[in-house]
Amino acid sequence: MSDHVYKKTEIVGSSKISIEDAIQQAIARADESLKHVEWFEVVETRGHVVDGKVGHYQVTLKIGFRLND
Amino acid sequence: MSDHVYKKTEIVGSSKISIEDAIQQAIARADESLKHVEWFEVVETRGHVVDGKVGHYQVTLKIGFRLND
Amino acid sequence: MSDHVYKKTEIVGSSKISIEDAIQQAIARADESLKHVEWFEVVETRGHVVDGKVGHYQVTLKIGFRLND
Amino acid sequence: MSDHVYKKTEIVGSSKISIEDAIQQAIARADESLKHVEWFEVVETRGHVVDGKVGHYQVTLKIGFRLND
Amino acid sequence: MSDHVYKKTEIVGSSKISIEDAIQQAIARADESLKHVEWFEVVETRGHVVDGKVGHYQVTLKIGFRLND
Amino acid sequence: MSDHVYKKTEIVGSSKISIEDAIQQAIARADESLKHVEWFEVVETRGHVVDGKVGHYQVTLKIGFRLND
Amino acid sequence: MSDHVYKKTEIVGSSKISIEDAIQQAIARADESLKHVEWFEVVETRGHVVDGKVGHYQVTLKIGFRLND
Amino acid sequence: MSDHVYKKTEIVGSSKISIEDAIQQAIARADESLKHVEWFEVVETRGHVVDGKVGHYQVTLKIGFRLND
Amino acid sequence: MSDHVYKKTEIVGSSKISIEDAIQQAIARADESLKHVEWFEVVETRGHVVDGKVGHYQVTLKIGFRLND
Amino acid sequence: MSDHVYKKTEIVGSSKISIEDAIQQAIARADESLKHVEWFEVVETRGHVVDGKVGHYQVTLKIGFRLND
Amino acid sequence: MSDHVYKKTEIVGSSKISIEDAIQQAIARADESLKHVEWFEVVETRGHVVDGKVGHYQVTLKIGFRLND
Amino acid sequence: MSDHVYKKTEIVGSSKISIEDAIQQAIARADESLKHVEWFEVVETRGHVVDGKVGHYQVTLKIGFRLND
Repeated sequence: MSDHVYKKTEIVGSSKISIEDAIQQAIARADESLKHVEWFEVVETRGHVVDGKVGHYQVTLKIGFRLND
Repeated sequence: MSDHVYKKTEIVGSSKISIEDAIQQAIARADESLKHVEWFEVVETRGHVVDGKVGHYQVTLKIGFRLND
Repeated sequence: MSDHVYKKTEIVGSSKISIEDAIQQAIARADESLKHVEWFEVVETRGHVVDGKVGHYQVTLKIGFRLND
Repeated sequence: MSDHVYKKTEIVGSSKISIEDAIQQAIARADESLKHVEWFEVVETRGHVVDGKVGHYQVTLKIGFRLND
Repeated sequence: MSDHVYKKTEIVGSSKISIEDAIQQAIARADESLKHVEWFEVVETRGHVVDGKVGHYQVTLKIGFRLND
Repeated sequence: MSDHVYKKTEIVGSSKISIEDAIQQAIARADESLKHVEWFEVVETRGHVVDGKVGHYQVTLKIGFRLND
Repeated sequence: MSDHVYKKTEIVGSSKISIEDAIQQAIARADESLKHVEWFEVVETRGHVVDGKVGHYQVTLKIGFRLND
Repeated sequence: MSDHVYKKTEIVGSSKISIEDAIQQAIARADESLKHVEWFEVVETRGHVVDGKVGHYQVTLKIGFRLND
Repeated sequence: MSDHVYKKTEIVGSSKISIEDAIQQAIARADESLKHVEWFEVVETRGHVVDGKVGHYQVTLKIGFRLND
Repeated sequence: MSDHVYKKTEIVGSSKISIEDAIQQAIARADESLKHVEWFEVVETRGHVVDGKVGHYQVTLKIGFRLND
Repeated sequence: MSDHVYKKTEIVGSSKISIEDAIQQAIARADESLKHVEWFEVVETRGHVVDGKVGHYQVTLKIGFRLND
Repeated sequence: MSDHVYKKTEIVGSSKISIEDAIQQAIARADESLKHVEWFEVVETRGHVVDGKVGHYQVTLKIGFRLND
């Protein structure tokens, strides 16, 4: 981080596989519409349950990206 | 929630009538510009006072919507 | 509260009508299976959205009840 | 809010009817002894239970008022 | 979530392998004694250390399940 | 803590004497109906006042116990 | 608590002896100038150290009292 | 802090100049009506915006003062 | 605040000079792309260190703006 | 506190007797290796249970000490 | 935990692979310079992003270790 | 931040002048005894009052530094 201005947006990724994969899904999707994505912060980890097993992990991230000068 | 990616945006609705109406105002306004609004979370409830009575309820929501695939 | 021991249990009530009705639903249901329900604390207020309107209010309560001596 | 100094005081209103009415009770009472009440913030919502129903809603507010210059 | 009433219970799962496995252990155990388990929320992640390595991950979940009507 | 699954339950003990005694009351009562109680965490300490003195200390604990395998 | 309005004020009691005594000091002092003191909530426990021992316990309370009708 | 009892009151200072000046405004005003003001704690920093610039900084403090013996 | 709906967006301003300047940078940048910016709330203050001195202050704000009717 | 710089370190004291004794154990131990210990803040109170009684109180403190000039 | 005194230190581990691996890196490094490391608590999970993917997971832990008697 | 391991330590800086100066005092002091200081996070801002004015600002920071490989 230097002299720039950044914005944080809150994204929820979901995955059947793992917490890390849910994070990747969220970042990949944010990266489609945002430039200069630089960092993320995990805000919440939850999920739903199907037949006594984790159906999806749902991870809420704050994603930080640099605004154009 | 399934395999999708979601975004949360923070909206403040206000109403002279009730907390529920302030929530509805916020959701109705979000729905004008966002597709696939699916849920809300109340973050903060406050208001201002006029002549010793509630002037407006002001309710801050996080509103969750699904991003297009 | 006097010399007794109490327990808190976390219940989520839902209602199409209002936050108060969701609270009442949760308490009524708790009262079916618990004796000596004495107080509640609102932990979280959220809901889901259908067609740009609140579908259900979902209110999480901690419900306190006295344990038998 | 402009160049003034404000004070916040913590008041608990109660009502058999609704959360909004408990808020109004608290503000009306504060307004009896304080001048320039301008806003409120909900800090906590709870209540006690009588016969499996809400007996009273008890809502804790921070009430902000402007101090005389 | 629809018109039903839900309960949340707090369970700690542990695993030598991963955070996800500790979550699965907790859910599997809850599913043995509870019907209609629908979602979980991660409350705390910790663990103990043996010989300079993670001995067990210990993940505290709130597990939400629907109450019978 | 090892490979087991644990549950946390929230209990409020009260005592005219001390915070420690309120904790003991809560644990003693939990121990009557639960097996394998292993630890507690203080969540909240409060009390009511009678004639300008503490009437009862009321201490809310999370009590952790091991579930049967 | 019934249909009344209450106020909470934040008081710090200190004691060389114990946490309970610091609570008692705060309540006794509040009781000198306030009527209808009904409950307290512990907000913070700290103290200072003298010669490697606790010099004073300093306990911050919210003290709740009923306002005159 | 020694054997005394203290009270905390919540004051909001505002200033066009800086956060420090808003703190000073709050303390100066509290000092007009309170004796033995000893410390402050910053609770919240916010402000409003006029023409794309900070209009006022608004800083909420808890101000601690010693009660007369 | 009156009958309108508002949105909050999270912006990080940075500055070599001061916390206030970092706040101003964030607001000035938000004002370029948003209409009706009305208030801000400081969420987090941090920074990085270069040669044993503050390199940049980095201040995260929630910025509130009124949505067009 | 004057013009000095202080450091906080996090220590967990344990005691079979009381919360105060656990605090004293932590401070006594910190005082063995640190100079100028001046204050403490209670961060967490917990303990483990043996045979339906408190085995040990475990109190986590932040301990503040002045750094040499 | 028994009659001992413990210390907690805050360490940030980073890893390109997973959250678990970042935890292991932090613990392994702490174990090089500390004796009797016994447990960890996850305080924060974040990371930075490179080319639309997670570059590193960065996990902040509190690491608890027993002090020599 | 890259593949390294970092440590956070909690330091309180004080200054008669400003919040920024208190931050600088804390960092300068930390830099005397620590290598590779890279960032800080403000945890708490408080101060004491002398003659109705700020005597000292006291700012608690978490200071992050890279551990030697």
